Amino acid sequence: MTTFQENLEKYAELAVKVGVNIQPGQTLVIRTPISALELVRLVAKKAYEAGAKNVHVEWSDEELTRTKFHLAPDEAFHEYPAWIAKGFEELAENGAAFLSITGQDPDLLKDADPERVANLNKAGGKALKTFRSYIMADKVSWSIVAAPSEGWAKKISPDESKDRAVEKLWEAIFAATRTDQADPVAAWKNHLKTLNEKMNELNKRRYHALHYKAPGTDLTIELPDTHLWVSGGSTNKDGVDFVANIPTEEVFTAAKKTGVNGTVTNTKPLNYGGTLIDQFTLTFKDGKVVDFTAEQGYETLKRLLDTDEGARYIGEVALVPHQSPISETDLIFYNTLFDENASNHLAIGTAYAFNIEGGKEMSEEELEQAGINTSITHVDFMIGSSEMDIDGITKDGKREPVFRKGNWAF
Amino acid sequence: MTTFQENLEKYAELAVKVGVNIQPGQTLVIRTPISALELVRLVAKKAYEAGAKNVHVEWSDEELTRTKFHLAPDEAFHEYPAWIAKGFEELAENGAAFLSITGQDPDLLKDADPERVANLNKAGGKALKTFRSYIMADKVSWSIVAAPSEGWAKKISPDESKDRAVEKLWEAIFAATRTDQADPVAAWKNHLKTLNEKMNELNKRRYHALHYKAPGTDLTIELPDTHLWVSGGSTNKDGVDFVANIPTEEVFTAAKKTGVNGTVTNTKPLNYGGTLIDQFTLTFKDGKVVDFTAEQGYETLKRLLDTDEGARYIGEVALVPHQSPISETDLIFYNTLFDENASNHLAIGTAYAFNIEGGKEMSEEELEQAGINTSITHVDFMIGSSEMDIDGITKDGKREPVFRKGNWAF
Ligand SMILES: [Zn+2]
Ligand SMILES: [Zn+2]
Ligand SMILES: [Zn+2]
Ligand SMILES: [Zn+2]
Repeated sequence: MTTFQENLEKYAELAVKVGVNIQPGQTLVIRTPISALELVRLVAKKAYEAGAKNVHVEWSDEELTRTKFHLAPDEAFHEYPAWIAKGFEELAENGAAFLSITGQDPDLLKDADPERVANLNKAGGKALKTFRSYIMADKVSWSIVAAPSEGWAKKISPDESKDRAVEKLWEAIFAATRTDQADPVAAWKNHLKTLNEKMNELNKRRYHALHYKAPGTDLTIELPDTHLWVSGGSTNKDGVDFVANIPTEEVFTAAKKTGVNGTVTNTKPLNYGGTLIDQFTLTFKDGKVVDFTAEQGYETLKRLLDTDEGARYIGEVALVPHQSPISETDLIFYNTLFDENASNHLAIGTAYAFNIEGGKEMSEEELEQAGINTSITHVDFMIGSSEMDIDGITKDGKREPVFRKGNWAF
Repeated sequence: MTTFQENLEKYAELAVKVGVNIQPGQTLVIRTPISALELVRLVAKKAYEAGAKNVHVEWSDEELTRTKFHLAPDEAFHEYPAWIAKGFEELAENGAAFLSITGQDPDLLKDADPERVANLNKAGGKALKTFRSYIMADKVSWSIVAAPSEGWAKKISPDESKDRAVEKLWEAIFAATRTDQADPVAAWKNHLKTLNEKMNELNKRRYHALHYKAPGTDLTIELPDTHLWVSGGSTNKDGVDFVANIPTEEVFTAAKKTGVNGTVTNTKPLNYGGTLIDQFTLTFKDGKVVDFTAEQGYETLKRLLDTDEGARYIGEVALVPHQSPISETDLIFYNTLFDENASNHLAIGTAYAFNIEGGKEMSEEELEQAGINTSITHVDFMIGSSEMDIDGITKDGKREPVFRKGNWAF
């Protein structure tokens, strides 16, 4: 077996054992591009070996997506198959685990009509609303891992041959996800413990607000009274642990919907539904985006912010040290799974229900009453750098260092 | 463009224009193995160019199927996702067209537990019963074309390299489907005209029964009074023409359920759900299989016959000349789409509703009352050869030659 094959198997095992943590008798649903075929086959094998009852795969193909955006009529982009959404809901209700494999060419939809992209995202968001609410509330185990498409690999290594670019990206993925370590499953247990310690400390400190300072950024984010900091390790409604993102380096909570003020500048490009948005700023007043600029992808950003009312408010506040295996690859991945976990980030759109006390049991209305944002969208964007300082502000106005020069200050 | 690329495009066009004959605004559903990716991309392109609103693809992967049969627990084989069946019904009700791409390794499930194979076929048959009834009644346009998997290609050319075997099988497919002719769409219009002429003549003759004679075969099949001969060209409920099998060389009708007597021997191997059944005989009394033998795949044949009550009766009676572009390839394809269209064949299981007058509007009970068979299964098996003679027997007992030495006698 080559090192690549060994690492691919270890990565598949990580996805099954640590990512979705498949349980005997469970169905595993994999959503994946066809380009990840080799990984999918290994994941399925490991899942059955771990006792999965069934593995159901929903495939996509970049070339077909491109063809659709070029040739289909407008009305095709206002629809999402209701029966698939219903199927996902049923699978979730029956306790299936959901693994997504990301790896899309960041420029896939570069030439597509942004209105079509927005319409399709909206149609999907609406149709999958109930399913997404199960995911957002951690009712089921779910996880996201990655596999290079040729387009993605060439975006990162434009001067390499396709094969070499893909090989290099796999190496970066293996490094960033600790797969290249001797025992990745053990390495992850350790890592999750460290994240938990930060989480517990923040939950003890109970900050009233965070104040972000960096070039282009001066932003204050209030936190709801009942906010809960959460780390990469999650637990579903049946008490089974899982890790929603591999890699994950974040400790995160919900913002107070109406408590965000100031301006923030992104530090890494945002790949939204196949279009890149970069060098952008958002200006907030009482939680709402009241102004924004973008050097790249302005139109797409505008449409994202216009998705619904909640798309102009912050849902998630995530703290991520600038130092991590991801950062050490020294790459911009043009993929949120990696870039967000190498950088402090915020998310536009819906907050995670589990980020406030009792949130998992609340209706949408109750979540809004508790002060957090709801929306059909949730899009992370990266704002961290080695120049970022963050202060925690206590209820009585005292300031404490949380981040200094991009890393944890405690 | 290479000849291969040219032929592949012509074949995709044939599938879209002649096969499902896609109409503006229609959704095309493609069910296909991932190995047919290149063909699927071309079919999607041609479909959108012909005005399709959307192309939805349901993918499968042989390796995943094999893994499931090896590693999944027994209960996994008693289930078929109800939401997918429901989705197919909805798509059909909304007028979608359905294209299946066949190409499975004939030995895919050779080492699988036959009980698992039977259970999965049964579960799928039950779940898809309503959808299948739409197909069987030609409510929607549907078509089957082919694309080689490596396993299938190697089965036909075991001594060639994988690449060469696949190349040779593509050449055979292009020849057998008239794709290698200058204008395949025109060639098909011509061919369908010829088949129509045979159909019209048989419908005029209104035989009471057919009598088959060949080595190992002496079989009489009565036809229902209201039987209708049908050829490869079909018309859906909206009046749109389509061709359900590419290639098709058959003119076929329904058997009288209780009117089959004698013994029949197969002449080409039958590939049933990944297992080969060969050198088998079926003996009928008053329509029912009362005895059977098989040198290969006995257990699978037994389970097929035990699927339900109707699986012991004949549904379809198809006349196919021994001379055709398929026969001229001089290959056994180990794939029913090709082998059945190079050979007289019968089908075990359900009859096509449109093979009796008014059948499309009948319930299952009414179809049985009209004298034809219903079942959750429908499996063609090949009985033709250059040594087969078939007589038509009129109501008053007169015999007329229908086939002599494997070819049309009129
Ligand atoms: Zn996050
Ligand atoms: Zn997020
Ligand atoms: Zn037939
Ligand atoms: Zn048939």
